[in-house]
Amino acid sequence: MFDDADLTDDKFLCGRLTLLQPVRGYRAATDPVFLAAACPAQTGERVLDIGCGVGAASLCLGARVPGALLWGLEVQPGYAALARRNATRNGIDMQVHDGDLAQMPGPLRVDFDHVIMNPPYYPPAGTRSPVPERARAMQVDLPLGDWVLAGARRLAPGGWLTLICGTDGLPAVLAGMAKLGSIAVLPLAPRAGRTALRIIVQARKGGRGPFRLLAPLVIHAGQAHDGDRENYTPEASAVLRTGSDLLARFR
Amino acid sequence: MFDDADLTDDKFLCGRLTLLQPVRGYRAATDPVFLAAACPAQTGERVLDIGCGVGAASLCLGARVPGALLWGLEVQPGYAALARRNATRNGIDMQVHDGDLAQMPGPLRVDFDHVIMNPPYYPPAGTRSPVPERARAMQVDLPLGDWVLAGARRLAPGGWLTLICGTDGLPAVLAGMAKLGSIAVLPLAPRAGRTALRIIVQARKGGRGPFRLLAPLVIHAGQAHDGDRENYTPEASAVLRTGSDLLARFR
Repeated sequence: MFDDADLTDDKFLCGRLTLLQPVRGYRAATDPVFLAAACPAQTGERVLDIGCGVGAASLCLGARVPGALLWGLEVQPGYAALARRNATRNGIDMQVHDGDLAQMPGPLRVDFDHVIMNPPYYPPAGTRSPVPERARAMQVDLPLGDWVLAGARRLAPGGWLTLICGTDGLPAVLAGMAKLGSIAVLPLAPRAGRTALRIIVQARKGGRGPFRLLAPLVIHAGQAHDGDRENYTPEASAVLRTGSDLLARFR
Repeated sequence: MFDDADLTDDKFLCGRLTLLQPVRGYRAATDPVFLAAACPAQTGERVLDIGCGVGAASLCLGARVPGALLWGLEVQPGYAALARRNATRNGIDMQVHDGDLAQMPGPLRVDFDHVIMNPPYYPPAGTRSPVPERARAMQVDLPLGDWVLAGARRLAPGGWLTLICGTDGLPAVLAGMAKLGSIAVLPLAPRAGRTALRIIVQARKGGRGPFRLLAPLVIHAGQAHDGDRENYTPEASAVLRTGSDLLARFR
């Protein structure tokens, strides 16, 4: 568990959401916000966030879609506790379960309309963080394909799996989606004309549409950092600041 | 075999290359030109073009890289004969073998530095062409993944596989590349901001680089057809008209 002195209280979506996060350890940035924006959940639908961390993606989704039924799974008790606390202080209902996706807790062995996930994707080969929680959150304990398979298994017929990961994870993600259809990849490019470093991948259980590669979402305007760290493009800004969705991108 | 009355003589690369093609049946357009531009072959290296058709990709490559050792495999004798004829009339050496990739002819069971392919990718479910040669060239007789596996098997250690296909083929292509590395995907978008309909995929035998998704190559300028059918972007025009390569894109 984290001591309150080791937490920061960070604004997301221009302050519509505030999230307690550990100072040291994995810290949510833009990934969960983009992920939430891509999930087509509607009011009354059940959403499972696998590896929910402090709840950033689910709570961003809850802020946009009131009445979505949010469930989270988190293997690290300290993060799970923060997710519960963050849900309460933002006035959003979210059931957070402690547990491992390799041994899905009983209450989560049901059908969900949506599964979302932001799996760890920093290569385990690099320098490990000296902070155990950070190392854990960033380490690929399980192959990425296993994350995807675990998510796919929790989908109701017609349900949607939406995830964000590093571009280098695409082969494993597609292998794990062999039984899903209507797969679409939205590349996130740091700047126009640059290689996409992150991707959002969406697929549907029982979907029959062809695999699609969408035009990249460009995150930063201009060709280099110009001192203004948050020089976002209008599309990225609409997601990160206004909480707009990305659903039209996937249609 | 085709009767000469059923052939057209078409200019490629602004006339540096002229190719006899059947009036009816599969006709090379821009795909083989982009494919050739992406192949990093150098003088003296061996290149196998699987499903070479009338030889468009190989001969574009031969025009750019004099002294590349070009080999082709084609299952339809009429196309194989045209490929030989096209090689001769353009003064480019190319060994074309009749045969099926599922039963690779003996002379091609050697190691190549490069394999290139432009597999048929029109969905077999649609209306079949009444022209048997066209139906054959467009039909996926073998799953796309089998094409990729057959190509990968022909690579020398460190050799490169480069292919162009419809975007919907990416999952099968990646599955077939499970034993290759340093995979890079170059999306070809018809216009800026549009979904990519075709992709060039490159991978290396023994490569250890991560999977990469490159910024799209945009083919047409402007947002709609404006009457000038060949309103190419400068980058596309450099490939299609000048015969420039796309190698820097993959570095």
